[in-house]
Amino acid sequence: MKRREFLQASAGLALAAQAGRGQSGAATQRFVAVAESLKPQLRETVHKPISLVRPEPDSTAFLKWRMEKLGDPSDLAARTFRHGDSFLLDFGRHMTGHLAFSLSGVGEAVDSPVRLRLTFGEVPNDVAVPMDTYTGTLSRAWLPDEVINVDYLPQRVHMPRRYAFRYVKVDVIDTAPPYAARFADFEATACTSAGDRPPALPNSVPTLLRRIDEVSLDTLRDCMQTVFEDGPRRDRRLWIGDMRLQALTNYATYRNFNLVKRCLYLFAGLPREDGLVSACVYDQPKPLCGGQYIMDYAALYGAAVLDYVHATKDLTVARDLWPVVRRQMEIVGQYVNADGLFVDPGNWWLFIDWNDELDHITPMQGVLLYCLRQALELAKLAGAERDAAAYPERIRRMAAAARANFYDASRGLFVSGPKKQVSWASQAWMIHSGVATTEEGSAALRAVAALPDAVRPVTPYLYHYIVDAMLLCGMKQEARDLLQSYWGGMVQSGADTFWEIYKPSDPDLSPYKSLLVNSYCHAWSCTPAYFLRARGL
Amino acid sequence: MKRREFLQASAGLALAAQAGRGQSGAATQRFVAVAESLKPQLRETVHKPISLVRPEPDSTAFLKWRMEKLGDPSDLAARTFRHGDSFLLDFGRHMTGHLAFSLSGVGEAVDSPVRLRLTFGEVPNDVAVPMDTYTGTLSRAWLPDEVINVDYLPQRVHMPRRYAFRYVKVDVIDTAPPYAARFADFEATACTSAGDRPPALPNSVPTLLRRIDEVSLDTLRDCMQTVFEDGPRRDRRLWIGDMRLQALTNYATYRNFNLVKRCLYLFAGLPREDGLVSACVYDQPKPLCGGQYIMDYAALYGAAVLDYVHATKDLTVARDLWPVVRRQMEIVGQYVNADGLFVDPGNWWLFIDWNDELDHITPMQGVLLYCLRQALELAKLAGAERDAAAYPERIRRMAAAARANFYDASRGLFVSGPKKQVSWASQAWMIHSGVATTEEGSAALRAVAALPDAVRPVTPYLYHYIVDAMLLCGMKQEARDLLQSYWGGMVQSGADTFWEIYKPSDPDLSPYKSLLVNSYCHAWSCTPAYFLRARGL
Repeated sequence: MKRREFLQASAGLALAAQAGRGQSGAATQRFVAVAESLKPQLRETVHKPISLVRPEPDSTAFLKWRMEKLGDPSDLAARTFRHGDSFLLDFGRHMTGHLAFSLSGVGEAVDSPVRLRLTFGEVPNDVAVPMDTYTGTLSRAWLPDEVINVDYLPQRVHMPRRYAFRYVKVDVIDTAPPYAARFADFEATACTSAGDRPPALPNSVPTLLRRIDEVSLDTLRDCMQTVFEDGPRRDRRLWIGDMRLQALTNYATYRNFNLVKRCLYLFAGLPREDGLVSACVYDQPKPLCGGQYIMDYAALYGAAVLDYVHATKDLTVARDLWPVVRRQMEIVGQYVNADGLFVDPGNWWLFIDWNDELDHITPMQGVLLYCLRQALELAKLAGAERDAAAYPERIRRMAAAARANFYDASRGLFVSGPKKQVSWASQAWMIHSGVATTEEGSAALRAVAALPDAVRPVTPYLYHYIVDAMLLCGMKQEARDLLQSYWGGMVQSGADTFWEIYKPSDPDLSPYKSLLVNSYCHAWSCTPAYFLRARGL
Repeated sequence: MKRREFLQASAGLALAAQAGRGQSGAATQRFVAVAESLKPQLRETVHKPISLVRPEPDSTAFLKWRMEKLGDPSDLAARTFRHGDSFLLDFGRHMTGHLAFSLSGVGEAVDSPVRLRLTFGEVPNDVAVPMDTYTGTLSRAWLPDEVINVDYLPQRVHMPRRYAFRYVKVDVIDTAPPYAARFADFEATACTSAGDRPPALPNSVPTLLRRIDEVSLDTLRDCMQTVFEDGPRRDRRLWIGDMRLQALTNYATYRNFNLVKRCLYLFAGLPREDGLVSACVYDQPKPLCGGQYIMDYAALYGAAVLDYVHATKDLTVARDLWPVVRRQMEIVGQYVNADGLFVDPGNWWLFIDWNDELDHITPMQGVLLYCLRQALELAKLAGAERDAAAYPERIRRMAAAARANFYDASRGLFVSGPKKQVSWASQAWMIHSGVATTEEGSAALRAVAALPDAVRPVTPYLYHYIVDAMLLCGMKQEARDLLQSYWGGMVQSGADTFWEIYKPSDPDLSPYKSLLVNSYCHAWSCTPAYFLRARGL
């Protein structure tokens, strides 16, 4: 089932959902009020462009284009631009923020407005391919190009929106015959709620890993705004699954604990009528439920709360949010049958990874079981063990059912669904859930890696859980190799920040059928810094 | 010579101009300071759209399109809009001002920005013909269409610029699959520095003349901003020739004397180095010389000062600005030879009218002579008659030369240039200049009207001087007939405000090769209210 169908199905579900089982209106309002009280002031830093550049097609580059340096931005002072002229600036780093520049007219008389198009790019492709050629499945309105008319010159022009970018292309649509446009003093103001940057890794760490760590830090920094954003170029929502990974990395790096707390309370305060947390929420123009529901994300909400409590020792939050976590366990628990097996109801969005081929049964069994264990631990910390009295038996039954149904002992790995699909996702989640022993897990991961036809991850999100599973199974070298080949592959392809999607064998892959709308600074890809700094990788 | 060539020629002239003969820097700074002290606060009024409309091609309409009413703007509340949808609002009147509206999303989730194009039209053609088809000679940047991205819904959207419009077209470039856009509460804020509207003409005045008066008042109102603008849709500059006609009408209607004073002082404060007043000035982003020089406009500056002194009896202004007027007379007087004849130096922009066929010699002789007479009168009022001691002899010589060279007594009209061209312009300016007697003038105007090949005016600007000449010659009925046929023709073609250009035989006429960039609310066309209210028409 595709995402769009799920949206409609879950709209139906919302109507059918049992009312009155969620938190009271007073409780959810309080959660939102707590979240709003923690809304951060963003830190701003000003950056100048470092080069004038030109995109060149490059068949050897993963992203198909490379940037050629043409000159120094100060060269602009000597140049003028008319109808059809353009130039391209490179700010030398990715950032989330604002742009301003000075615009003047040179000639006999500046007797008309100037009409400009500004296009913002995270990667060369974004500014090399005309946005009006876009035919992707997401809204054209996501693409960050602006057409503006500037009435009076000289003027300091402040672009109207926030953008995520490294490159800015300026097209002069028109001046007027008596004058040409002159540009100067481009300034980008980068915004973040990340605090002080942690010290770099020591020089003893291999260069590539140190670079991977830096790119992770940059990715997280640019996604940390008034919430942990998904991808600041496009989807600025707060998603549970993405937030959990950002929060883990944040604990080991920028340590903005209040931002995590704010996000956890936003989810708690903006549920569906029956108490199910939304997979995503908005914080602009005001806190709003995203109205999309992902079963694995709802389950993982409790894991994210537990991570927070571990990181901060703040048991007040554990007690405060426990009823919300308990409600998620009740709701997703309905899809586990008496035998302890997850049964896909067919009308929920199950995520796990952006891979249409993936069979979700076994990975979902793993997620639900893992989350039930996390919830049990949280209940204990919250002093609510009685609420979770039934969890141990449910855990036992789910674990036994998973082992009995999904483990192919002869092959030493886990399979999923009627076609007994072998996927990396299934192995990882059977490890996280504790179904596989350490030895079985490491054997399964080695086995799946040796099968060319096994369904591989396509997103850094799932790769995170693979690396984590390797560490759980003592496969530190393999985890490091994977980090270096996967995230290192992005670094070697020129990534300034890590991407929403990266499949080394398929440079054209886009969940939305157009590279122009892919996000190249994406929250869920920032975890290498967590592994390197908090997990001993 | 076309306008562009003149620009270059006058740039050359500027270099060649005698320095040090204009007002001192201190004097021009003081003029600008006086002007700035008189900068008006604009009055704002809020207007709602009156209809949803659709443009229909109409071969019987002068402007080729008519608007069909589709419904009430309140119908928008029940409608939603997605990719490719559009609608069109009619505000029921022309205005210069700003636009705001409320935008919300309807659907499962408003999960993307909205990308919109808004197109502002003074006449149906402006919103019926796609602006990207524009191939005119003026800058594309003049065309008032905006592409905007609105990040968060619901939102009150304030369009970024000032527009001149009656119609607004909204194109929804994209929403996103889960939601559609809904629009509500469109509000236009009209701005003007015109004061209270004068009472309507009495019912005894014929309906068409009363309507012509109303449209004149609306035209002037929408051009009266922080200066008397040329045309608020496009050219927002202050031009001498246009201003003079607006000021005359203003004295008889809104009576904002300070706005005229401000404009006169702006010209005085922003001359060329040699003291020549620029044909136009800017007041945004700050007072600036327009850098274009029109000989007839420079000459008419003094006439405009005299008009102001007549209207206000403010002799201080007469004394203050007399040196500026005297300097114009010195400069343009260089192009009158010892025989009292104007000699076209070939490198000046001579305007008179937007008509490439027009021979300028005789009309220019008339303008220069007329302006010398006005300047002499101003000198007397300013107590500076000694400065103008030579004027009476110059006037005598120019009048005699004009009569001897341009009057064809056998045909009873004035001719111009080596081909002895017969034009309406020549007759009018020979009357204003006092070369023609009242009898000769009325005969000449009747004679030229009877000649189908005579070069006719194409702009309301020159038609103003024709009507005025008729009144000077006692041809009240003919003046009224012309008012009714020419300005009445615009009214009957649906004009809400009078146009920059109107040639009844040529609906496609544009000085800029595209109707899309013609201005349909243009200062110099507002004088019927002056004739009806101050000249007894």
